Amino acid sequence: MSYTSFSVENLQSMDRIPRLNLINSISGYKPANLIGTKSESGNTNLAIFSSVVHIGSNPAMLAFIMRPTTVQRHSYDNIISQKYYTINHVPADLTAEAHYASAKFKREQSEFEYCGFEEQYHDGFIAPFVKNSPVQIGLEFVEELPIKVNGTIMMIGAVKQLHVRSNILEKDHALNLDQADIATISGLNTYYRATKLAKYPYARVGQFPKAE
Amino acid sequence: MSYTSFSVENLQSMDRIPRLNLINSISGYKPANLIGTKSESGNTNLAIFSSVVHIGSNPAMLAFIMRPTTVQRHSYDNIISQKYYTINHVPADLTAEAHYASAKFKREQSEFEYCGFEEQYHDGFIAPFVKNSPVQIGLEFVEELPIKVNGTIMMIGAVKQLHVRSNILEKDHALNLDQADIATISGLNTYYRATKLAKYPYARVGQFPKAE
Repeated sequence: MSYTSFSVENLQSMDRIPRLNLINSISGYKPANLIGTKSESGNTNLAIFSSVVHIGSNPAMLAFIMRPTTVQRHSYDNIISQKYYTINHVPADLTAEAHYASAKFKREQSEFEYCGFEEQYHDGFIAPFVKNSPVQIGLEFVEELPIKVNGTIMMIGAVKQLHVRSNILEKDHALNLDQADIATISGLNTYYRATKLAKYPYARVGQFPKAE
Repeated sequence: MSYTSFSVENLQSMDRIPRLNLINSISGYKPANLIGTKSESGNTNLAIFSSVVHIGSNPAMLAFIMRPTTVQRHSYDNIISQKYYTINHVPADLTAEAHYASAKFKREQSEFEYCGFEEQYHDGFIAPFVKNSPVQIGLEFVEELPIKVNGTIMMIGAVKQLHVRSNILEKDHALNLDQADIATISGLNTYYRATKLAKYPYARVGQFPKAE
């Protein structure tokens, strides 16, 4: 099987767009999430992110990576000023709508309206959830960690409420994402649907994993 | 469609294992990566991670989240002492082998040998790559960012070399992960294979995305 290799010098001398396409692909499959916020003046905002990462279960915390100078600055401003935001999974049949949320809409234009999503509010939580998303997470902003080497920011939030479609909640409380029919992202703009291969028990030395 | 809701109090009062299963599932699909390292005394180590995240393309940098007190401490020690490590995608037909790498092997036991992977070395890079992995990334450790709220660590590395199977490199330099036939992970122990739904052009206001 033949390989194509890139040295750090090759990567540095590439044109910007092919380098963006390549480097955004190399981590593998990424989660497809819509982050919902509301501004001080009440405008809602929805932005697509593929950098949400688990950082802890007790207390439950998620983080995501933010570039402070992009269109996604609206999300940043809203999170900093209002402290609450939502993370919602992208249904596999709404990837065009979700991708459209990455266009540079104006601050007063809500991506909910322009991209075809409906706002939903739960239990007095001020930030808007995406209606019909199979996993809706309400978070409170905890802190931002500046990543000084390249000016990005890691935004950390604590899970305050969680709404999951009942039919995807398995007996052990894992979520069946297959059943949820959500999307996963590669690179900047390619969307995939996944199907389950295997669920393995907790791995122990001397017991080669067998699918449950 | 009926939903099951969890408040922060519900999450806090859950038993540890169901909470781990649930909270590790809520971010969506995660990348499946094997991180290869070598110790000062020459022992190789391979660990599975699902927290690799893109943080920049120029210079190309990836990060991952590390819990310092787990079996994965071997990876941490090797990265800190040797400065170089590899990130390799998990082939969809080797998920049992990859999951086995999460068992608590001893420091002197190489997961390469015990789990059924072959070491490969490129261009004088000291850390071992996973042979036949369709995407092999060689990184140099840049810095660790302590996430003080829960004691985890964000490990940041710069891409020094990259080897991708030639048949997955598209014209625009995005990688075709479908063709690569790699796995994606949900939660702690469920592995999926993905198939492409759509690739969209760069999104612009007024142009609803149409698949290429």
